[in-house]
Amino acid sequence: MKYIQVDNQQSLVFSETVMPEIAADECLLKVKAIGVNRADLLQRAGKYPPPMGESLILGLEVSGEIVQCGEYAGVNHLAKPWKVNDKVFALVAGGGYAQYVKVKAKQLFSLPEHFTFEQGAACAEVFLTAYQSLFSIANLADKGNVLIHAGASGVGSAAIQLAKAKDCYVVTTVSSEIKAQACLALGADVAINYQEMDFVAYSKANMPLGFDIIIDVIAGEYVAKNIKVAALDGHIVTLSMLGGRYCAQLDIAKLLAKRLTLSASTLRNRSEGYKAQLVADFINDFYAELATGQIKPVIDSVYPWQQVEQAHKKMANNENIGKLILVVS
Amino acid sequence: MKYIQVDNQQSLVFSETVMPEIAADECLLKVKAIGVNRADLLQRAGKYPPPMGESLILGLEVSGEIVQCGEYAGVNHLAKPWKVNDKVFALVAGGGYAQYVKVKAKQLFSLPEHFTFEQGAACAEVFLTAYQSLFSIANLADKGNVLIHAGASGVGSAAIQLAKAKDCYVVTTVSSEIKAQACLALGADVAINYQEMDFVAYSKANMPLGFDIIIDVIAGEYVAKNIKVAALDGHIVTLSMLGGRYCAQLDIAKLLAKRLTLSASTLRNRSEGYKAQLVADFINDFYAELATGQIKPVIDSVYPWQQVEQAHKKMANNENIGKLILVVS
Repeated sequence: MKYIQVDNQQSLVFSETVMPEIAADECLLKVKAIGVNRADLLQRAGKYPPPMGESLILGLEVSGEIVQCGEYAGVNHLAKPWKVNDKVFALVAGGGYAQYVKVKAKQLFSLPEHFTFEQGAACAEVFLTAYQSLFSIANLADKGNVLIHAGASGVGSAAIQLAKAKDCYVVTTVSSEIKAQACLALGADVAINYQEMDFVAYSKANMPLGFDIIIDVIAGEYVAKNIKVAALDGHIVTLSMLGGRYCAQLDIAKLLAKRLTLSASTLRNRSEGYKAQLVADFINDFYAELATGQIKPVIDSVYPWQQVEQAHKKMANNENIGKLILVVS
Repeated sequence: MKYIQVDNQQSLVFSETVMPEIAADECLLKVKAIGVNRADLLQRAGKYPPPMGESLILGLEVSGEIVQCGEYAGVNHLAKPWKVNDKVFALVAGGGYAQYVKVKAKQLFSLPEHFTFEQGAACAEVFLTAYQSLFSIANLADKGNVLIHAGASGVGSAAIQLAKAKDCYVVTTVSSEIKAQACLALGADVAINYQEMDFVAYSKANMPLGFDIIIDVIAGEYVAKNIKVAALDGHIVTLSMLGGRYCAQLDIAKLLAKRLTLSASTLRNRSEGYKAQLVADFINDFYAELATGQIKPVIDSVYPWQQVEQAHKKMANNENIGKLILVVS
């Protein structure tokens, strides 16, 4: 099969390799579309090795058709057995940048009717990450105040919609006016362009009680700022550190005064059991909303997979609003 | 009634004031014994003002006898109505250093049979704080690895016993050999005298998987050290900052790599509803063990309340193993 290889110069080149062999609890998919993630860029740069035992090929989420089912693949969310030709989308621990990929059956989602494969490939990573952050980790309650940094990113777009589905008041930060408009269109109550306004100043003036939950992919100097705008008993969830690895000075007195919780979370290296439960919980809570379009993946651009380099470049330059998708041909 | 007043020079002097008036959901106690807490020292020094609306008198936990019951005082843990002459111990939001104190009825515990008032006064703050940290906040699972800093403190002594009751492996840090022996006598598996051995070096050599839960009253430079010895998905609970207010450099990459959670928690300024639930949960999970002596308060010294100054001095000098108790006469 064809796949996209990272060569010695960290360039992306097409190559050939053997087909994956599935285990009894897995399905083999013919990949139709691939979601691009920042983790792909990190892995390509040699900064994010795949978990032990997983494929060395890039790619954490795909959509496609089942071409082979393991003996214990089990059933879909309607309790019907997974079968060949089922259209699906899925989280994968690696191996997505290829014509075929194996998937743990419990990490498969049926592709909702009327969904294109491109839309399917744009769902798993962002919605599961946002769902995990807001619900599994931070126990989002209805009508809370939520701050979402990088609101126009894939995870940000998903988090805005999930929080609004729970009647929360959602403030986002973005890097441009066009991204601000995109966040507002998704339902965000406020979008702060951080190039023009400091979110701490905004929050202190307008949100005196602070934020119950803060979803942050920036870290760095945002850690101390998040603490300033967090509410009593607030929960700050850090998913990445695009803004830097270190918080220069963590003030424990402020943490104690507000009884704050800081969680750092990732999804890829979680156990199979954790991911299976997360998928089941998300399907239970939000599959209907996804199928009816009440919540929806946000797609920035779709590229033929031969143009993977352009997609990576756009993400590296932080120019995308929502997901970048590769179509396999 | 008599009470201990903090005068303008921050000295403790006996004074007279009016009796507290109870609300319908409160009881009035004749105080028999008082637990001394570090918060008392902070409040005395003007560094920890009482929550809005609470008594300005020192004192967060007492034992005594009910002398008056509000109309809606409700029932004890055996579903019998609270009544005058019941022997109890209790968490109070302030006002304990006095002959009489009012208490929310839902924060009362029946004094177990065979308990002295001194033992009763040594229970509420430490066991509820330890219980809250281990169970409500960090979701302690059976057989986890737990690190408890200041293991010979009141909270430390309580946390050791609660964690051992759940078959955890418990490592403590202490400042002296005699405190180490006290921790081991309470069931701790290891007691590290930090004057002689670095707990990070010890932990790396002996606990390669790290600690699932770390209970820390030190903070300061311990924050970074705790992160080093935490396990994957570990939870660090900070209760105080005896070692300093700031963590010089928080490394987000380490938090993400281990998917850590840092929580800062206090008990005193929690809502009435939260405290009532905490008391009910603790009674449900551990009252029997307390009554049978399977877990027990650790008392360092008992003083007549006229010697409150000695008790404060001993705590300030970090010389106590377990609780310091004042007897009211």
